[in-house]
Amino acid sequence: MIRVSKFIEKISQSMDEKRSILCIGLDPALPEQRSQNIIPSRYIRKYRTSEAKLHFCLDIIEQTKNSSAAFKPNQQYVMDFSTKQHQRMTRAIRKAGAISILDYKLNDIGDTIESALFYIYKWGYDATTFNPFLGNLERTVQIAHSYTPSMGLIVLTLTSNIEAVRYQKEANIADKPLFLSVAEDVKRFGADGCVIGATGHVTIEDITAIREIVGNKKLLLIPGIGTQKGDPEKVIRNGGNKILINVSRSIIYSETPSKMAEEYCFMFNKMRI
Amino acid sequence: MIRVSKFIEKISQSMDEKRSILCIGLDPALPEQRSQNIIPSRYIRKYRTSEAKLHFCLDIIEQTKNSSAAFKPNQQYVMDFSTKQHQRMTRAIRKAGAISILDYKLNDIGDTIESALFYIYKWGYDATTFNPFLGNLERTVQIAHSYTPSMGLIVLTLTSNIEAVRYQKEANIADKPLFLSVAEDVKRFGADGCVIGATGHVTIEDITAIREIVGNKKLLLIPGIGTQKGDPEKVIRNGGNKILINVSRSIIYSETPSKMAEEYCFMFNKMRI
Repeated sequence: MIRVSKFIEKISQSMDEKRSILCIGLDPALPEQRSQNIIPSRYIRKYRTSEAKLHFCLDIIEQTKNSSAAFKPNQQYVMDFSTKQHQRMTRAIRKAGAISILDYKLNDIGDTIESALFYIYKWGYDATTFNPFLGNLERTVQIAHSYTPSMGLIVLTLTSNIEAVRYQKEANIADKPLFLSVAEDVKRFGADGCVIGATGHVTIEDITAIREIVGNKKLLLIPGIGTQKGDPEKVIRNGGNKILINVSRSIIYSETPSKMAEEYCFMFNKMRI
Repeated sequence: MIRVSKFIEKISQSMDEKRSILCIGLDPALPEQRSQNIIPSRYIRKYRTSEAKLHFCLDIIEQTKNSSAAFKPNQQYVMDFSTKQHQRMTRAIRKAGAISILDYKLNDIGDTIESALFYIYKWGYDATTFNPFLGNLERTVQIAHSYTPSMGLIVLTLTSNIEAVRYQKEANIADKPLFLSVAEDVKRFGADGCVIGATGHVTIEDITAIREIVGNKKLLLIPGIGTQKGDPEKVIRNGGNKILINVSRSIIYSETPSKMAEEYCFMFNKMRI
């Protein structure tokens, strides 16, 4: 019998306590980066850039904490955070009774994986995402789980962007689409879950097949709802019990993050019944 | 006819001027991370951690600049660098007449790729590495090349660790090993080159096949020489003209980085004849 990991215990507890399967993605973008979906100018006026992004995130966490089981900062938006800034972020998430997942998409070989996990642990994150292309999942899980508290590892299994079809679905290992081999490795090496897109080419059959392989004790983390217009219902109805739906921009860049988070939380719960 | 990219022009010029195909990998590890291959204690005594790592790298750049065409900091070791620290690193590399490649192993979707490239450009790097598992190579190349100066994009094509065999070689797309499809995409989407391991399961035939697909105007970046005990000769004799051999620990953690860099540079040049 497979025991659930420490991370799965933690995230399950958070989802139960909050009565929520909502994860809020934190993608704080600056005005010099793009014209839409940027942090409000009041933060920029008040702070230097990385502090402006941090304060924006801290406010979002505070405003949405009642509806969110987890927060997922995306590394590509917080690349310039110092160790202290990451620690302030993860402390705020912990204080909000939620789980912190750094969407780092870690991929590297040998000792270098250890170095990345060393920092992600130091920064205070409960879990990180992992890109399986270079292999190394077994060792990475061992290292992540060797920390106290044990860190979770959630593996990119099937992403929703159309260009991913070539490498994840058309590619075959022993006559099966590659993403199913990734799911097998998640199970075999004891990783904590899978990231699965909810839009575009991803079908109910794909999600069901992944869930069947990994079993009911792994987390499925589903981005792509909201701005990316994924269909949460097909995922929620077919994804099994341990499922976390990520919404980013539709909440964090709305006029009323608190209300939007509440609405998504409520909508997802209704779909579960 | 395919024109060489701005990045290929720059790296070719640096290799010509230095008469070197050596790239030095900068993996500055702290004593609390592991027991071997760590930065000397004098840096730790003098500076706080990220500054200690930066000063160690700056000294290596200064000591080895005559023998090195490029420097490749690995993101997993400099995750805690501030924007200013990255800028000091890239300025030192530029001043040394060499090219800076951030080994970031970038992989993400949509606008998020843009955010990562925004910071990598701001930090001053000439190029970055890219993990192709999520697709998105075409758009990523377009964005990287749209900056002034244009940034280079070098794609992980075949890594040398044994666990990579499953996803890169055993996996097939249209009856060909997946890594050859990655090479095809490098050519098709105009990326600047391929990262190819030199150890273990990677054969001369693999390297020759990749070079045949991408043509002679792409860079092959070859890590795994030195500590990882790859055989540079098989790569150098079969890799074509635009090839950069990366050595990290055997140089940066040696007693005499300057002399070691010189020896590697000389050895690689001898193998080219």
